[in-house]
Amino acid sequence: MIYREEVVLKEQYLEELQEEYNKYKSQNLKLDMSRGKPCSDQLDLSMGMLDALKSDDDLSTAKGVDIRNYGVLDGIPEAKEFFSQMLEVGEEEIIIGGNSSLNMMHDAIARAMLHGVHGSPTPWSKLPKVKFLCPSPGYDRHFAISEFFNMELITVEMTPDGPDMDEVEKLVRDDETIKGMWCVPKYSNPDGVTYSDEVVDRLAEMTTKAEDFRIFWDNAYTVHHLTDEPEQLKNILEACKAAGNPNRVFIFGSTSKITFPGSGVAMMAASKENVDFIKKQLAFQTIGSDKINQMRHVRYFKTFENLEAHMKKQAAIIKPKFDMVLNILERELSDRNIATWSKPKGGYFISLNTLDGCAKEVVQMAAEAGVTLTGAGATYPYGKDPRDRNIRLAPTFPSLEELEKAIEIFCLCVKLVSAKKQ
Amino acid sequence: MIYREEVVLKEQYLEELQEEYNKYKSQNLKLDMSRGKPCSDQLDLSMGMLDALKSDDDLSTAKGVDIRNYGVLDGIPEAKEFFSQMLEVGEEEIIIGGNSSLNMMHDAIARAMLHGVHGSPTPWSKLPKVKFLCPSPGYDRHFAISEFFNMELITVEMTPDGPDMDEVEKLVRDDETIKGMWCVPKYSNPDGVTYSDEVVDRLAEMTTKAEDFRIFWDNAYTVHHLTDEPEQLKNILEACKAAGNPNRVFIFGSTSKITFPGSGVAMMAASKENVDFIKKQLAFQTIGSDKINQMRHVRYFKTFENLEAHMKKQAAIIKPKFDMVLNILERELSDRNIATWSKPKGGYFISLNTLDGCAKEVVQMAAEAGVTLTGAGATYPYGKDPRDRNIRLAPTFPSLEELEKAIEIFCLCVKLVSAKKQ
Repeated sequence: MIYREEVVLKEQYLEELQEEYNKYKSQNLKLDMSRGKPCSDQLDLSMGMLDALKSDDDLSTAKGVDIRNYGVLDGIPEAKEFFSQMLEVGEEEIIIGGNSSLNMMHDAIARAMLHGVHGSPTPWSKLPKVKFLCPSPGYDRHFAISEFFNMELITVEMTPDGPDMDEVEKLVRDDETIKGMWCVPKYSNPDGVTYSDEVVDRLAEMTTKAEDFRIFWDNAYTVHHLTDEPEQLKNILEACKAAGNPNRVFIFGSTSKITFPGSGVAMMAASKENVDFIKKQLAFQTIGSDKINQMRHVRYFKTFENLEAHMKKQAAIIKPKFDMVLNILERELSDRNIATWSKPKGGYFISLNTLDGCAKEVVQMAAEAGVTLTGAGATYPYGKDPRDRNIRLAPTFPSLEELEKAIEIFCLCVKLVSAKKQ
Repeated sequence: MIYREEVVLKEQYLEELQEEYNKYKSQNLKLDMSRGKPCSDQLDLSMGMLDALKSDDDLSTAKGVDIRNYGVLDGIPEAKEFFSQMLEVGEEEIIIGGNSSLNMMHDAIARAMLHGVHGSPTPWSKLPKVKFLCPSPGYDRHFAISEFFNMELITVEMTPDGPDMDEVEKLVRDDETIKGMWCVPKYSNPDGVTYSDEVVDRLAEMTTKAEDFRIFWDNAYTVHHLTDEPEQLKNILEACKAAGNPNRVFIFGSTSKITFPGSGVAMMAASKENVDFIKKQLAFQTIGSDKINQMRHVRYFKTFENLEAHMKKQAAIIKPKFDMVLNILERELSDRNIATWSKPKGGYFISLNTLDGCAKEVVQMAAEAGVTLTGAGATYPYGKDPRDRNIRLAPTFPSLEELEKAIEIFCLCVKLVSAKKQ
């Protein structure tokens, strides 16, 4: 009898959920929380950038270089000084690039394929196989670059401290075709994890069979805190130097989520030996990046402390969005054992795991009710989440009002799909 | 006896020249006419660019896209519309890039190497050999890109109408490893030649053994006239379409010598099929170029006619420099049969040929007297001018006063070296 009652209850429950879902569906909503885009209030914070350089300003560097003209391959000294603080490296260890760190990562891989990195016995594209480690869930655009260059992607599980280092160490020790690894080490995309000191040290110290192994350290969210207690990430370049592997890491960063995405300044850092090697190759590609935009950023912020204060204003705008999402997830899903999720202290995402085998259907149902989420599976190599459970939520772009509705619909979809599976 | 007098005269002449040269040398001059850089007066013309977008402006496209945020891979519609006029192509046939057309060319080759171009049977880097035709004298940075990618460079002689087409047609018809060709088709670097209609047609129509042959059409000086009678270049994309080879050409351009070098807008044009193919590859490299800078250019110029008027102001600044160089060359060298030179109607260079075997020594002597010229040989593949005679003069950057001294020293060196050789 109890069994029968439970069945009836479950049917009732499913019916109620379905009814609620149909109601949303009939509203023809169009809500997008698929990508980590700043909202327009965040962009408004940087409008002063447009007045930072005016027609009657002197556009020379301190050393008298006219930044309006050709030249300066690796960035003006002012920009190197400013952004080396952000990446915590020396001014000799940084290259200021164009508007996109993704572009710099892509190009770094393209150079490695065609010419090799510093110390490569052979260009990677001449090898029968190149593999890259992909801590997952991770950033789909990283994985896509590796796929584009025909690399084999190897999934490594993320833990609350960073990638599963036992697994990483074992893999790189024995396989010389593993040439590199993608990392978002701080407030990781999507889990919001900051790698522990131990993980950083083990990455720096581990023995790699490939002598030209490179860590692609995408420190995209280094100043993107959501709380007043910023998480600390150990300096990987220093750790690599201390471990006797100074050339192991390429560090990347940008102002894309600080000022204007697409019109910011990107940068790359590495050992001076790496930087010197890269500059020789870069010289064939370009005469230099946009020095005026570099100066625009430096003159706008003036000091690194001002940039940090600017990031607090960013946080003040997006923190309520994260809180709202987390509160609704808590309210709707916490007592059902059908999902777990991250509570990030920085970055741009909340990562949610459904029951195994539910993520695709949840995303599909949400889409049919007008809520666009990051595609299920996107956070894994080849777009294939082996347990079909991870969903990346990007709360920053929609308004609070839109977000509330979107996340309520999302929770409803999680409940519906879970109930059907259970 | 006549013989003896001539020897004495020659010795006297050499002595006088040497004395004059030593006088210059003792002045410790530092004059640079090595690169095609705008002078600061030219850059001043564009200072209004810095006020074109202000903090209280609306930064949306006509279609309502917020250009401050991520997105728009191939450029904002406003920029496509504007710059498609400059490259004389359709708005579907253009991709707006970052700050450097050289970068776009480099990347186009890198993509061809790693993935092939549209219709490639195989990526170029997988082939045992790739050759590129290099009309010479030509642009050293073009040749350097090809060298960087281990291509074999084949010199094709330039004629007053463009590359020697008999030679080009013969080469590409029989050799499938010839995958492409560099061209600066208007006011060429360094000869100032504009390709004739016949040359353009023959390039479009010729039979190539390589089915994925590409012409890299660097239309760098398309609006860079020095006279009121602009030379006309036949539209290569239309010619290629008419010849049934619509995918043969990649066209490049930029505002580097229109607004600010390094902070301008670069662009690439090709058939829609090519553009669609490239956009799929580009999507792995970047989310999009600097849209704010694109809009800054469009709002600053407003109309293409304004850009053309702006170029007349540029010409007014640099024409006197070209005239001065040409007048001094005429005065010092014309009655001696020791040099010939171009009289360009646009572009950035004067190309001078010494007697065979003199160029390197002339450049060396000039350097020792404090005048930096483009390296002799730079205008030929591998930096090797087979006749050691071509020297590229770049008159735009120095002041008129500096230029006068530099070119006088240069002429003196030509006379000295020629006299020693004769």
